[in-house]
Amino acid sequence: VNPLQLIPVENFPMVKPGDNLAAILVGCLEAQRITLHNKDILVLAQKIVSKSEGRLINLEKVVPSKLAIELSQKVNKDPRQVQVILDESKEVLWSTPGIFVVETHHGYVCANAGVDRSNIEQAESGEWLSLLPQNPDRSAAHLRQELFKLTGQDVAVIINDTHGRPFRMGGIGVALGSAGITALLDRRGEQDLFGYILQNTLVATADELAAAASLLMGQGDEAVPVVLVRGYRFQAASEPDSGASTLIRPPDKDVFRYPARK
Amino acid sequence: VNPLQLIPVENFPMVKPGDNLAAILVGCLEAQRITLHNKDILVLAQKIVSKSEGRLINLEKVVPSKLAIELSQKVNKDPRQVQVILDESKEVLWSTPGIFVVETHHGYVCANAGVDRSNIEQAESGEWLSLLPQNPDRSAAHLRQELFKLTGQDVAVIINDTHGRPFRMGGIGVALGSAGITALLDRRGEQDLFGYILQNTLVATADELAAAASLLMGQGDEAVPVVLVRGYRFQAASEPDSGASTLIRPPDKDVFRYPARK
Repeated sequence: VNPLQLIPVENFPMVKPGDNLAAILVGCLEAQRITLHNKDILVLAQKIVSKSEGRLINLEKVVPSKLAIELSQKVNKDPRQVQVILDESKEVLWSTPGIFVVETHHGYVCANAGVDRSNIEQAESGEWLSLLPQNPDRSAAHLRQELFKLTGQDVAVIINDTHGRPFRMGGIGVALGSAGITALLDRRGEQDLFGYILQNTLVATADELAAAASLLMGQGDEAVPVVLVRGYRFQAASEPDSGASTLIRPPDKDVFRYPARK
Repeated sequence: VNPLQLIPVENFPMVKPGDNLAAILVGCLEAQRITLHNKDILVLAQKIVSKSEGRLINLEKVVPSKLAIELSQKVNKDPRQVQVILDESKEVLWSTPGIFVVETHHGYVCANAGVDRSNIEQAESGEWLSLLPQNPDRSAAHLRQELFKLTGQDVAVIINDTHGRPFRMGGIGVALGSAGITALLDRRGEQDLFGYILQNTLVATADELAAAASLLMGQGDEAVPVVLVRGYRFQAASEPDSGASTLIRPPDKDVFRYPARK
């Protein structure tokens, strides 16, 4: 087993809609004198992927529905922001002042559908928020292809975000999207140290990598939106690459999906 | 922001009840020519901590109660094993063939109360299972003290285990116990890149570290029960050290605690 290195990518510039993230990333790595290798893993913060894809919305242009206005009083939030959250959601599971716990259209259960104001440059008028990428697996696959074109190296890409969890306090990094890596590793049937066959051993490898990279992604003034993970022997993605969507537990297999106390 | 290294501790021997884990660990590190530094983090797999503490049980000596026998038919499990799981639990939240989702006496919500057979040496008679440490924070604090005595270095210790999760498929490493590090980091009130005050930013740092280390802890023939994390700037624990128990969400703050569909 080799050591594993988590290398923060330095001096990543502010990302704007339309920016070519892969090209920016390769430029930053060059400045850091790092050459990408096959089997390197790049973990990118959701926020820069969303920005590059123009997944930004100006609240000034949002007209809240009657439902959004009604809910906004309950949770003490701007009704236009509530409208944006509803637009990004399949279902609201629960709400409390400031927070909706929703299932997004992708299937993530998270706070406020990932609609967020932090680290978003504000223009003179209105208030800008970021949305999650429309299809984070596709975003990851695209980045992976672009990195291959630019460097000839076969890397894995993970897009991470910080989500809260039932049962546990605090958020941790999770994989919203991935490409080139088996996100959910099935170790059932392998033997333990004494030849005993492992029983329930599905490992969310991409989530563990997302959490690891998250350690270096400060949200304050030392923002590190990309972390290079080097030295981890991972299983390549199967073809076709099912990405990180394999990590979403189908509602019918999830006994904790519907809280008893709404 | 510095790179972060995850270094697997090599050739860790099989652990037996009564073993001095800290001394074994320092011996392994010496053989690897690694000297511990202040602010290093050592992540130890729960299994070796449990073994060293003698948290093992022989099913031959367990007499199942009437309830255990009844439940064992429902979940298709050895009634004696069910008894052990019940003994380790405060409450059974849910069950399905093979698995009880319980709240342990510590407050962890996990499968089968952490009672597990994998990587446990079996004797000629009976069947041995391991239990979680009685007080993982205390175990971590003890290891930290012992490591200080042996090396003079002020390290942090995390005891990790792999837990499943609602909403997400697959298990990931989580922090059962910790010492010397603020397990739950409160970043509320810090500013983002544009001076915006961060709102809901509690970060489960110890869980992210536990997940990161878990990447290197194969459960197969290349078992790595200890990982050294070097280069992570963490917040020291406050005094008194509240450990990883701060990561347990109190039931009254957990809307997903009671599943609607038992």
